[in-house]
Amino acid sequence: MEFSLDDTYFMKKALQEAETAFEKGEVPVGAVITISGRIIARAHNLTEQLGDVTAHAEMQAITAAANFLGGKYLHNCTLYITLEPCQMCAGALYWSQISKIVFGAYDPQRGFSALGGKLHPKSEVVGGILEHEASSLLKRFFIEKRNLN
Amino acid sequence: MEFSLDDTYFMKKALQEAETAFEKGEVPVGAVITISGRIIARAHNLTEQLGDVTAHAEMQAITAAANFLGGKYLHNCTLYITLEPCQMCAGALYWSQISKIVFGAYDPQRGFSALGGKLHPKSEVVGGILEHEASSLLKRFFIEKRNLN
Repeated sequence: MEFSLDDTYFMKKALQEAETAFEKGEVPVGAVITISGRIIARAHNLTEQLGDVTAHAEMQAITAAANFLGGKYLHNCTLYITLEPCQMCAGALYWSQISKIVFGAYDPQRGFSALGGKLHPKSEVVGGILEHEASSLLKRFFIEKRNLN
Repeated sequence: MEFSLDDTYFMKKALQEAETAFEKGEVPVGAVITISGRIIARAHNLTEQLGDVTAHAEMQAITAAANFLGGKYLHNCTLYITLEPCQMCAGALYWSQISKIVFGAYDPQRGFSALGGKLHPKSEVVGGILEHEASSLLKRFFIEKRNLN
């Protein structure tokens, strides 16, 4: 698995977004999108607060980055996302033709690869960056949630 | 293929949305979502106008229906969509646990079934309702677009 220092740096920013989601009682997943080493979108999961299954961190980040760039294609952009994208988000990334996707924890249950989803052939994919940090946060969330119920 | 008169009636409403998309220069795809025979969301593709790949008709309709219902799950709802959902929209429908999906034209290139996407096991699916009308509108759009370029 090849990754750069930049990948770790920006994944930490995505993890900060995931922590914000955690504090709001949302499944803690966070995202940032960069172009030329600059963050152009930050987002975290808001499905509970918005009551909307489409409000995953990636979906909001894709919309925000496209708004910033003034166009729907995310060429030369990199998404940093703390959890492997689901089928929906993989589909949105496919349409965006994003250049690179870096994810943290693998999601063997609902990740796009487990569900048979496909990314755009132009998109480079790197998985497992700060995997332990991302999955620890998710585990902590579900343990706390279970204890509350 | 089993379908009811209701399916044809509501697919016509979805086709009206697709025609509105056509008039705006958008790939003509339209959607409505119903519950107990009542329309609770209408939407059409707005990817060009919004410069956002996530603005498919289905995605907007899912968000609108959830807002109407005050919750993220679309139990007992039916989506009428003029074109077979793509991987992204299939993923969103999966999360919504929608009860029924009725689509018009098949999409052998980018439809969820061609790309290996999965719907929720609780979702009933019916394809090919007013297929000819939906695909004719799409063909007309792409012919006009080609002639303009």
